[in-house]
Amino acid sequence: MRLRHKPWAADYIKENEGLMVLDPFEQKGKWQDLFEKNQPIGLEIGTGKGQFIAGMGAQYPDENFIGIEKAESIIVTAIQKVKDQYLNNVHLVHENAEDLRDMFAENEVDTIYLNFSDPWPKTRHEKRRLTYHTYLEQYQNILKDDGKIVMKTDNQNLFEYSLVSFSQFGMKLEDVTLDLHELDDEMNVMTEYEEKFSSKGQPIYRCIAKF
Amino acid sequence: MRLRHKPWAADYIKENEGLMVLDPFEQKGKWQDLFEKNQPIGLEIGTGKGQFIAGMGAQYPDENFIGIEKAESIIVTAIQKVKDQYLNNVHLVHENAEDLRDMFAENEVDTIYLNFSDPWPKTRHEKRRLTYHTYLEQYQNILKDDGKIVMKTDNQNLFEYSLVSFSQFGMKLEDVTLDLHELDDEMNVMTEYEEKFSSKGQPIYRCIAKF
Repeated sequence: MRLRHKPWAADYIKENEGLMVLDPFEQKGKWQDLFEKNQPIGLEIGTGKGQFIAGMGAQYPDENFIGIEKAESIIVTAIQKVKDQYLNNVHLVHENAEDLRDMFAENEVDTIYLNFSDPWPKTRHEKRRLTYHTYLEQYQNILKDDGKIVMKTDNQNLFEYSLVSFSQFGMKLEDVTLDLHELDDEMNVMTEYEEKFSSKGQPIYRCIAKF
Repeated sequence: MRLRHKPWAADYIKENEGLMVLDPFEQKGKWQDLFEKNQPIGLEIGTGKGQFIAGMGAQYPDENFIGIEKAESIIVTAIQKVKDQYLNNVHLVHENAEDLRDMFAENEVDTIYLNFSDPWPKTRHEKRRLTYHTYLEQYQNILKDDGKIVMKTDNQNLFEYSLVSFSQFGMKLEDVTLDLHELDDEMNVMTEYEEKFSSKGQPIYRCIAKF
């Protein structure tokens, strides 16, 4: 994604304290307190411009959502989307989540969403892929025992890699689809990327996996 | 595959005793004795016209191969292919393999090949799919501890189903590719179907899984 510098972004993030969680590490073990209702927490890693997290918040009022995005100039768009829809079940975090265990307690999260993550195609960058085993260790820690990972991507190699990585880690695949939009699943909430790629006829891969 | 009746097929199978294993149930636990050399056994379930098993036999002289095919009028073509290439590391079986445990002892097989198996798309036919859990139980029994299943198909739904079925059974995925021919793997031996489908640009899926 091309990053356009937005000099007002840092201030805009601060102005939206409440929706934005400014010190997410202080929130560890207490995320549920942020929300109006105590209900399952979905966590999107790499929220981007927020179409998915805002769409999920609107579609599933009985769930809470947290979106993490490290790019300041991008997350401001997500803030706007969430505000426009008056969603009280969505919070956003502007942070580079090196280790999610610093931010979330054990069993604090119900679902982790990985949407169109950076594929890091070079072998020497394998460790940066969000389905590398060191990340899976983090997810396993913060997810509930019955929690799940829902991954969507248009990147064939990342998908192939991730299926094997999940499996080698001992996770079980609950569902695999190699052409999500062929299913015509009305409950599917699209990301910006997904809308763009699938409109070009490119298949979208999705996998649901559990520890 | 359209089955053309070949009245001479039954006789032709009998004439080729040696290459054909006429009483495979008697061979249980003694398959290695059939071959000139004691070396790993690869078993193809649904050998069809034999292009794969003959190709494998020729390409891997240090391995032994057994091909099972229930259709009489089809396996005769496989017999011809194996004879034409003077392969002494391939045997064929004309049998409807209801339970492979009647035919093979525990740990007798190194690799099971499932090539372009019937997808049985209807849910009520799920039990007939060769990656249904009752078949996986059979494979687990006859495969060596480190043995593997290599599955190829052009059928998206069967592939999705099989990945989940392997995983839910507790198997580990060793490798997944969603476009085998993109890899340009010179060691890949194609089946008749594979040649036909991939020449049309249709992706071929492959998965390698272990118990």
